[in-house]
Amino acid sequence: MAEPNHVPRTAVRQLAMVFLATGLWFVPAPDGLAVEAWRLFALFGTAILSVVISAFPILTAAVFAVAAAVLTNLLPAEKAYAGFANGTILLIVLAFLVARSVVKCGLGMRIGHLMVSLFGRSALGLSYSIFLVDSIIAPAFPSNTARSGVIYPMAFSLADAAGARPGEDGRRRLGTFLMFSGIVSLSLSSALWLTAMAANPLGTEMARAFGVEIGFGSWLLAASVPTIAGIVLMPLVLRWLIAPEQNATPEAPAAARRALKELGPLRRDEKIVLAAFVGMVLLWGAAATLGLDSTAIAFLGFGVLLASGVLTLQDIAKEGDVLATFIWFAVLFTLSSQLNELGFMGYLGQHIAASLIGLSPLVAALILIVAYVVLHYMFVSQTAHLLALFGVFLDVGVKLGVPATPLAFQLLFATNYFSAITPQGSSANLLFAGSGLLSQRDMYRLGGYSTAFCMLVYLVIGIPWLLLVTR
Amino acid sequence: MAEPNHVPRTAVRQLAMVFLATGLWFVPAPDGLAVEAWRLFALFGTAILSVVISAFPILTAAVFAVAAAVLTNLLPAEKAYAGFANGTILLIVLAFLVARSVVKCGLGMRIGHLMVSLFGRSALGLSYSIFLVDSIIAPAFPSNTARSGVIYPMAFSLADAAGARPGEDGRRRLGTFLMFSGIVSLSLSSALWLTAMAANPLGTEMARAFGVEIGFGSWLLAASVPTIAGIVLMPLVLRWLIAPEQNATPEAPAAARRALKELGPLRRDEKIVLAAFVGMVLLWGAAATLGLDSTAIAFLGFGVLLASGVLTLQDIAKEGDVLATFIWFAVLFTLSSQLNELGFMGYLGQHIAASLIGLSPLVAALILIVAYVVLHYMFVSQTAHLLALFGVFLDVGVKLGVPATPLAFQLLFATNYFSAITPQGSSANLLFAGSGLLSQRDMYRLGGYSTAFCMLVYLVIGIPWLLLVTR
Repeated sequence: MAEPNHVPRTAVRQLAMVFLATGLWFVPAPDGLAVEAWRLFALFGTAILSVVISAFPILTAAVFAVAAAVLTNLLPAEKAYAGFANGTILLIVLAFLVARSVVKCGLGMRIGHLMVSLFGRSALGLSYSIFLVDSIIAPAFPSNTARSGVIYPMAFSLADAAGARPGEDGRRRLGTFLMFSGIVSLSLSSALWLTAMAANPLGTEMARAFGVEIGFGSWLLAASVPTIAGIVLMPLVLRWLIAPEQNATPEAPAAARRALKELGPLRRDEKIVLAAFVGMVLLWGAAATLGLDSTAIAFLGFGVLLASGVLTLQDIAKEGDVLATFIWFAVLFTLSSQLNELGFMGYLGQHIAASLIGLSPLVAALILIVAYVVLHYMFVSQTAHLLALFGVFLDVGVKLGVPATPLAFQLLFATNYFSAITPQGSSANLLFAGSGLLSQRDMYRLGGYSTAFCMLVYLVIGIPWLLLVTR
Repeated sequence: MAEPNHVPRTAVRQLAMVFLATGLWFVPAPDGLAVEAWRLFALFGTAILSVVISAFPILTAAVFAVAAAVLTNLLPAEKAYAGFANGTILLIVLAFLVARSVVKCGLGMRIGHLMVSLFGRSALGLSYSIFLVDSIIAPAFPSNTARSGVIYPMAFSLADAAGARPGEDGRRRLGTFLMFSGIVSLSLSSALWLTAMAANPLGTEMARAFGVEIGFGSWLLAASVPTIAGIVLMPLVLRWLIAPEQNATPEAPAAARRALKELGPLRRDEKIVLAAFVGMVLLWGAAATLGLDSTAIAFLGFGVLLASGVLTLQDIAKEGDVLATFIWFAVLFTLSSQLNELGFMGYLGQHIAASLIGLSPLVAALILIVAYVVLHYMFVSQTAHLLALFGVFLDVGVKLGVPATPLAFQLLFATNYFSAITPQGSSANLLFAGSGLLSQRDMYRLGGYSTAFCMLVYLVIGIPWLLLVTR
């Protein structure tokens, strides 16, 4: 008897992906789309799909995609590698290294114990504590990526204090739960405040062309009800989706208080890390006003941690994961931007829009919003997505009779909450994706479900609320 | 009694560096030099000096320098981070990761045993084997950086097979000896062939403006005698400077043959690595002809090693050192390029040149060559150095009556052999610098001495030879 299970299934999937990319490559481009755009889509789309179906890890898929794009002269080398010099991506790399210091010096564990002592009666309590801290600090952080540099060490330390550690199986799902709470929290906290994400003011600026005026207060009012509903509901949804090993931990707060007592006062390294973080947070907050570059602030903080010996070269030597994240994200970021520049995104948006002519405004609006969210599978940057599609979708909606202000708000909120849809959907996800507590499969699965649920909340609660407050 | 030795000396040196940078910053720029160029020199010069005197590791120094340059608005952020997207620098990063596979699969150890069985009667024999292999393959490698991706795994495996390993003290100096042999070998093999380094044909092109015609054959003729002398002498000089723990190892070849026998035939992973390397070498060799990008070839090879499972994500996770090298090199590369772009290098070259007026041609030539070499302390790229100073120095020499052809050759050879002067003097050094077998202090010390000795060889043997063959 043959043993069919001995056929290595991964190899079959890998081969299928190679055939798919090659096949799409030679299919003629649809009318109105440049052949370069179509071929880059063949490479990029296959790379993403091969991660979704676990044919290749994301690093391997990204590396093959960029090699193919450059060796076939589809993209010039300078353009294909441009992502490596992107300030936001470098900020992530530095945030990774800086976050290491919080764990290493023990400050993270201390904060973890502190949070557990306050909210630790259940895994749910820990998740809510992440959402709470994040949404309170968000208006002062114009970059959700920079904010992830603060939320991630906290969430990681919470997981650590609760016994969920990378490579250990005992509380793997608890770790997944807390990490994904961080990702979703950042997506919702960014939707709550006009100043919590760089793309928000940009989007309000673009909406002005449609006669939609949005300020700090009107944004907060419009966002408040659906976003707070999301913040209340999402930890419950995630708990249901992930089923962490331990839910009720009534004795945890007392144990955490004992552990805090044993730790005693702050040690030298903890004080340095605390000072470095407070300094970075203050500078990040003032960055826009003082004209400071966020990445340079992170370089400075990283330098201080190195010079003070809190971080050593031996610590950095263990952070090869960060390099892997740097490579795949920089590559996918660039390929996605190029796909956009070559007109692929605009072409897709216009085709979707054209197919809606004749529908009722409400149905058209719903389809536009769903399509806008689903298309984020193709993007590696929220800002790029906004720049490519927000204007097109808003324009079509208005032409079909959808009121401009509520539609603008819906698309702007979506620009924030869809960040969780893929690990590369926002640079703010990367620290969590690299934590070792989330599998790539989990990230796509949870990303899909939680983005769909957020969309539901913003549609079902948000539409009536928006119609009420935007008169 | 006070205990003066308890004053932490490093802290004093660090403080001195901060004061130096700040002091230079506020000193008015010399006449004719833009204030930006002067201030960038204050940052860059202090960063290099602080590494030389061991005040900061090179990563810390680089990180502070770029943070200061951007936060003071001396450089715009996009320019300051541009080095991260540089193709050559990415090639290095990939070569590091790809080299890992040679060691991991056991192929490196096998090649090491093979070389030891042939040349292993002494440490000197091993060093000569590196120089020999490198100078034979050099004409087919238009990039000394790409070639370092082949020579480094070989040298590292030789060290490994001879018992010199990172973090182990027993044969530390033997490891240093073999690593530095690799660095010097690459600098000399590049000087031997017109096609062994990207800057060589560029330089001959620039020399054409001075009526100097150089082709593949005339370059080889002119380079042969001084370069072969260098290749014969440098292993002896390095042995004398480094004094490896073991010199005579008469029984090593027999032991290596036994070890080879025990290894048996090539294993699956070794075959894959061998095939990937042969493929990359062939593509690198054909890169110029076929218009292929060397970095993309490395991406492809890296992808193959990942997809075949020879390299795993766990392997990459251990390569944080590579990230550290990526960061400091990208930063120093950019700062040095900007220093050049802002006119600092040209200003310096012209001032040196101006001070030589009135000297005899021979003395002027000698001073020009020495100055050209010493100035490489300021450069992080051989090509940038050539572009900035070769024309100026050749022009001044000719005006002072130095014959153009021998001077052009001397400066072109120097452009190759001065690469060893600092760890960042050439991207081809980085793999060796990151090996864990060379300390930063050693690299500056050995770099200074060996570059001085090479210069001596090229002057004492090279000048008469050049006067003979260039009529």
